[in-house]
Amino acid sequence: MVKRVIIVGAVALGPKVACRLRRLDPEIQITVVDRDNLISYGGCGIPYYVGGDIADIEGLCSTSSHVVRDPEFFRTCKGVKIMPGVEAMGINRKEKKLDIQHLSDGRKESLEYDKLVIATGATPFRPPIPGADLPMVFTVSNLHNAKDIKDKISKGHVGKAVVIGAGAIGIEMAEALTDLWGVETTIIEMADQVLPTALGKNMSKVVENQLEKHGVKVMLSEKVECINGDADSQVTSVETSNGTMECDMVVLSAGVRPNTKFAADSGLAVGLSGALLVDRCMKTTDPDIYAGGDCVELRNLVSGENMTMPLGSLANRQGRIIANNIHGRASQFNGTVGTFCIKVFDMGVATAGLTSDQAKANGFDPVHAIVSQPDRAHFYPSAQLMFIKLIADSKTRKILGIEAVGGQDDAIKARVDAIAPLLQLGLNVDDVCVLETGYAPPFASAMDIINNAGNALDNILENLNKPIDVIDFVEAFKNDEIKVLDVREPKEAEPFVEKYRDRWMNIPQSELRERFNEVSRTDPVCLVCGTGARSYECQTLFVHNGFTNTINVQGGHAMISIIDPEFI
Amino acid sequence: MVKRVIIVGAVALGPKVACRLRRLDPEIQITVVDRDNLISYGGCGIPYYVGGDIADIEGLCSTSSHVVRDPEFFRTCKGVKIMPGVEAMGINRKEKKLDIQHLSDGRKESLEYDKLVIATGATPFRPPIPGADLPMVFTVSNLHNAKDIKDKISKGHVGKAVVIGAGAIGIEMAEALTDLWGVETTIIEMADQVLPTALGKNMSKVVENQLEKHGVKVMLSEKVECINGDADSQVTSVETSNGTMECDMVVLSAGVRPNTKFAADSGLAVGLSGALLVDRCMKTTDPDIYAGGDCVELRNLVSGENMTMPLGSLANRQGRIIANNIHGRASQFNGTVGTFCIKVFDMGVATAGLTSDQAKANGFDPVHAIVSQPDRAHFYPSAQLMFIKLIADSKTRKILGIEAVGGQDDAIKARVDAIAPLLQLGLNVDDVCVLETGYAPPFASAMDIINNAGNALDNILENLNKPIDVIDFVEAFKNDEIKVLDVREPKEAEPFVEKYRDRWMNIPQSELRERFNEVSRTDPVCLVCGTGARSYECQTLFVHNGFTNTINVQGGHAMISIIDPEFI
Repeated sequence: MVKRVIIVGAVALGPKVACRLRRLDPEIQITVVDRDNLISYGGCGIPYYVGGDIADIEGLCSTSSHVVRDPEFFRTCKGVKIMPGVEAMGINRKEKKLDIQHLSDGRKESLEYDKLVIATGATPFRPPIPGADLPMVFTVSNLHNAKDIKDKISKGHVGKAVVIGAGAIGIEMAEALTDLWGVETTIIEMADQVLPTALGKNMSKVVENQLEKHGVKVMLSEKVECINGDADSQVTSVETSNGTMECDMVVLSAGVRPNTKFAADSGLAVGLSGALLVDRCMKTTDPDIYAGGDCVELRNLVSGENMTMPLGSLANRQGRIIANNIHGRASQFNGTVGTFCIKVFDMGVATAGLTSDQAKANGFDPVHAIVSQPDRAHFYPSAQLMFIKLIADSKTRKILGIEAVGGQDDAIKARVDAIAPLLQLGLNVDDVCVLETGYAPPFASAMDIINNAGNALDNILENLNKPIDVIDFVEAFKNDEIKVLDVREPKEAEPFVEKYRDRWMNIPQSELRERFNEVSRTDPVCLVCGTGARSYECQTLFVHNGFTNTINVQGGHAMISIIDPEFI
Repeated sequence: MVKRVIIVGAVALGPKVACRLRRLDPEIQITVVDRDNLISYGGCGIPYYVGGDIADIEGLCSTSSHVVRDPEFFRTCKGVKIMPGVEAMGINRKEKKLDIQHLSDGRKESLEYDKLVIATGATPFRPPIPGADLPMVFTVSNLHNAKDIKDKISKGHVGKAVVIGAGAIGIEMAEALTDLWGVETTIIEMADQVLPTALGKNMSKVVENQLEKHGVKVMLSEKVECINGDADSQVTSVETSNGTMECDMVVLSAGVRPNTKFAADSGLAVGLSGALLVDRCMKTTDPDIYAGGDCVELRNLVSGENMTMPLGSLANRQGRIIANNIHGRASQFNGTVGTFCIKVFDMGVATAGLTSDQAKANGFDPVHAIVSQPDRAHFYPSAQLMFIKLIADSKTRKILGIEAVGGQDDAIKARVDAIAPLLQLGLNVDDVCVLETGYAPPFASAMDIINNAGNALDNILENLNKPIDVIDFVEAFKNDEIKVLDVREPKEAEPFVEKYRDRWMNIPQSELRERFNEVSRTDPVCLVCGTGARSYECQTLFVHNGFTNTINVQGGHAMISIIDPEFI
């Protein structure tokens, strides 16, 4: 019988396990230990605290009814004992004891458990470069750091900042520094794109442009070599392979590492990432020890491979599963499709599943469609352009991933959240074509962008739509390898025809049935319209008339102007 | 071999079939006939045209690149022949001929087909009451009516209007009349709630309050008996079972009837609704005749029963399926879960699946949870309260329906669209508890309201949460049948304790572990907090201590104040 449960970690998953377990069982002894004194906080809210959307740090550690979630709150309201300022040092699995040390006075003791839960999370990675330990080099790991960063900025100590790493936290922090405080901010990223684990390069360009548009400088394919400080240990600049960036503050956002040393030392199995391995009941390789949140590997339900997915949302869902299992109710967490979203100034970005590169690395043969379309009925006044990339396996037609970017956050989320269940269940392109989603003009087009992404991908898989990715198009056009037939109305095409002359021809769709023979049947011809829909329709006309040389530019001019704003 | 395809109806599904078919096949003869001269328009946009969000009627019949979709556009751009002003009179199925009449000159002719597509839609029902045919009594059926209505209002001819029927179109029209034009508008509905086919009565109250708050008068459980006119045939008033409402205009929105007479006369099978029966390939009982859109019955994927679901979104999806099948590519439309959404002023409403009443009528034993929670992290500044009702079958735990209402349209849509695939696939409550959706503080709480709705319903099904529906609570409290224990902080509970005295007791959650013995163990005690979450947690404490008399008010004070704003 389970009498004593010890939980290591009191940020997200730990408190969730504790509270759910107490609701299930009045008798069980529940103790949560944590290194920190600040517990049970919304760590994902830190960029919004720094950026001023949330005025006080208390906002992040209070309930929705404004009660601070401190040890006293857990004792009185939740019936849970919190031991703050306590570090877990090791696990004596044979005797079922957790060895701890009180950080205030160095005192050590052992706590007996019937079930142990490891909820130690992850720590931001501090790259081993000179200067990474200077005081003005911050990670975004806890509320203490968050306070320090905001304190320095609000006192006017920071004119220029460098953010190292263009993942979610790097981008959120860049927005926070720029938007409220006007700090001149540069993001430096090793990869050749922003959000490299979440987006394909084509879609990442939309985000890159958005950052630049809002004053954030983005430097890609650059490796940071050192961070320089002055005699007072103040940061002065960041040196990369390509040059030197002056700055007063550095934010490191180069990924996280799971906090699993004491657990791994006790012999619990860890994966390649260093995170703990758990089964679907969130049980480690020791039947009396559970783990969840940022310190475990989860099964990617699309690839079948293990991955880490450090998100408070997944941690909370897993917490309930762990409590159920400890209470004796079989309950499973099968894995993740990696659903992700981020606000980038006034733009929303959401993704789920694999990128094309990740799909290839996992043995799939990914094919994608990119569709640009208003997020609601095009005649509805608040409609804004949205871009969706849908990826499927060419052999099985199984959906592998979705990437969505556009102006209205929740509209982006709605599309990705509707596809995520299909990814979890291994459904295919045809299911996306007929997917039923909420429709009224203020919410969607009659044929929603999701369905049209499915339709476009179906057409590509069926070889009806012969596309070129917009990045490849822009490169090939610049290299003078292809000509363009613009099928928009003359007034839309005119500036392009003027700029590019004989390489940019215009026959509006309405005249194409009469005039298609004006087009070469031998040289490759890229068909362009506003979004890729009319040009696809024109391509079917060419194919029906025996042309084999037309290529449809995916996403049309809407995408071209994002990949290369200079294009026109 | 299919050489000639005739399509009857040129609004939504008809043009979709025609255009897709042309893209698949360059040779096939495609003719679309329609009674009207205005074709291929966004009929769902009519209320937004009347309400001024869309300035010109052309907005509703243009492409997103502002080209008017008239017969010339279909000829040149789409390679499709449109015959406007032509009525389908009958089908000679043996000889495969469609009998038509030209409305301009009465000329009759027969058109030969290899495949026929019926896309005749539905017509608003005009109830057989005296005065229903007066000129100022409008239905919302086509662009001509739409123009007439806007014309009358914009000329100042309408001070007061009555809308008959509180379904989607009735509510959208009431908003249009009130919001821009300031017309004093009353909605009269026979049922005892608004949106009776989409929402349960508890959730409908949120919408009813929203309408009243924005100046729309809502009269429920009233039957219209006649519409009165003056000597000039101007409308003067509407008489119901309960009284007389003065008005200058009446909008009838009492549902629609499928336009299937000529098809049914030819022997094609129709369902109880009068709509055509089709298989999953959208084929009628004649293998050479397809049908789709508002004039067919679809399979409800939750109940298994047939239903009509007149929505442009479904029509468009079906149109592509029909074209595929005519072209020889097997393609299926399996049915609908009835996903529905509507904007009501600045509130969004979305639903999918069955209401509790519909579930009961279909032999299920529905149990529901109502959760009130912010739509994004509670500390994020733009967070607004959202309400979700999740319904499952008590025996199988299968999800039967979801209803969501709240301040931010797309946030509402996101939740319902994420659940709709689960409804289609017959998944259960446990799948909702762990459902993975996009998370970051600007988009959602770490434990999103969807997951919490799943958790709450799981707790109810497991008998951990013993709830009372908020409507039942308000009634029972008014009838003096129950007492309340308010577990909020004293400052929140104080006005209630003062107003209701010995019937409203306050012990804040933080003191309850010490003070639970102050509560009666015999009389029924309703537990109330802000949203229903803390009160549930307190209930587990009572149950653990042997109390069998506590009942948790679902949705908490947030719901109570909506059901009865006078409550306090």
